[in-house]
Amino acid sequence: MPSAEAQQLAAMFRAAPPPLETPDVAQMRANMEGMAALGGAEPGTALESADAGGVPAEWSVAPGASRTRAILYLHGGGYVIGSIATHRGLVSRLSAASGAAGFAIDYRLAPEHPFPAAVDDAVAAYRWLLGQGIEPGRIAIAGDSAGGGLTIATLLALRDAGAPLPACAVTFSPWTDLALEGRSMDERDARDPMVHRPGLQQMADWYLAGQDARQPLASPIHGDLRGLPPLLIQVGTEESLYDDAVRLAVRAVEAGVPTAFEPYLEMFHVFQIFGMLPEAHAAVKAAGAFIARHTGG
Amino acid sequence: MPSAEAQQLAAMFRAAPPPLETPDVAQMRANMEGMAALGGAEPGTALESADAGGVPAEWSVAPGASRTRAILYLHGGGYVIGSIATHRGLVSRLSAASGAAGFAIDYRLAPEHPFPAAVDDAVAAYRWLLGQGIEPGRIAIAGDSAGGGLTIATLLALRDAGAPLPACAVTFSPWTDLALEGRSMDERDARDPMVHRPGLQQMADWYLAGQDARQPLASPIHGDLRGLPPLLIQVGTEESLYDDAVRLAVRAVEAGVPTAFEPYLEMFHVFQIFGMLPEAHAAVKAAGAFIARHTGG
Repeated sequence: MPSAEAQQLAAMFRAAPPPLETPDVAQMRANMEGMAALGGAEPGTALESADAGGVPAEWSVAPGASRTRAILYLHGGGYVIGSIATHRGLVSRLSAASGAAGFAIDYRLAPEHPFPAAVDDAVAAYRWLLGQGIEPGRIAIAGDSAGGGLTIATLLALRDAGAPLPACAVTFSPWTDLALEGRSMDERDARDPMVHRPGLQQMADWYLAGQDARQPLASPIHGDLRGLPPLLIQVGTEESLYDDAVRLAVRAVEAGVPTAFEPYLEMFHVFQIFGMLPEAHAAVKAAGAFIARHTGG
Repeated sequence: MPSAEAQQLAAMFRAAPPPLETPDVAQMRANMEGMAALGGAEPGTALESADAGGVPAEWSVAPGASRTRAILYLHGGGYVIGSIATHRGLVSRLSAASGAAGFAIDYRLAPEHPFPAAVDDAVAAYRWLLGQGIEPGRIAIAGDSAGGGLTIATLLALRDAGAPLPACAVTFSPWTDLALEGRSMDERDARDPMVHRPGLQQMADWYLAGQDARQPLASPIHGDLRGLPPLLIQVGTEESLYDDAVRLAVRAVEAGVPTAFEPYLEMFHVFQIFGMLPEAHAAVKAAGAFIARHTGG
């Protein structure tokens, strides 16, 4: 049974879905920026802007967190909306839970910048972190929704380029299949209070701009995941995208990747971003412990 | 790269396989009991015999471990050999790593007691623990090899009987397919220094005594795993039984079970039992942390 707070939020989303799906990209972005529930950084967090080789970035360092360990954070929003600002609260809490410094980036968004601009920016930011002298074994990559799919795509791009891989990766409700072929897209649609096929299809179309939806850097469930570092996958059970997480976990296990699959009963898409939820606290705590364990924290 | 100690052990097993596969059951058992490498309990461990409703058992309580939290331990040995004594070292180290009390049992062995005697005894021992006032949410079930398969079978039997389930389960190199249909049975046979098809086939034949190898309580990869508690699966990559672990993890993820899959590079079957190996130390530490986290430690 979800907490009372989680039930209230789900009911609110059902009654009045977040106005994130409109034909007007600027309006969609403004609506997401305005979601007060996403909150700001935790008190005491040191925020600092950075330029990661041309990619706008922000350090988010919780009290006591070490800047010799970093979490490259890739926000969600369907590759179209969202920003450092919308995910500032989540990144600051992940820094606190892991003892590592958050490092969020504003990768380029579609439709202005279609695939693979987001992957290119995430790879560039990771290489910039290496250039700052942070060891790959002390870096995690993490992301939610589209940022979760982008997390895996970034790992695949780095592996294929022969780059040193980070210590681990964390995904919250990852969107790993831009062709929308997961069984839960229909089976769990009525249970999902906010994410549905039309909105995802629109974002996928903008991001892909006519390119193949089944190529691994766009839809990593179609990739060969061998050699990837340990992977934590969290997902709510009330998600159209539930099977995106399941199929990612299955592909990872079959590829010999150390894999932790954590379904959260009756929770919705990226519930971790709502810091007032006890479920978010528990999930971020687990993710932080996972990152700490693998990055030498 | 495995530790020097692990490489030495693997080379030793290759040169002189443990004499555990002979037509003489008594000799097989004596050979396993004699494997000095398995070692005794860690210094300071409090050992105490118990009768768990007719099933011989032994408490194994590390210094500082709590007897309000228990690990029901099911030893390996193909359902034919092995005992509380052969796994005393491993259980004592698991108690230390988890802060919970080990509770190992001598379930009945084949060929004298074929399937489902082992399952019946494990279920009886679990129910006895509940009868002692230990809460299900403070119990883990753990086992290696055949004991790993038995761990899952026990969970299925408990779930189907409507019994309260334990907080979590841990399996080391679980044998989950008595029909021996995993791809790794052939693909990784030459890389496995000790476990091969003829020996497994003999043990399966003795245990099944003509019964169906593909029934879930004998081969849990054929079971419906829905509703099982969080599951940790550790396996070495140099194992004929590697795919028994992979298929268990995949089935668990697909059933919505919180699942952690941990492959250990270049390690062999149930390496955790060799306490002198750094890899064993790391794996048992991870298993202990998993148990502590889920049993309220």
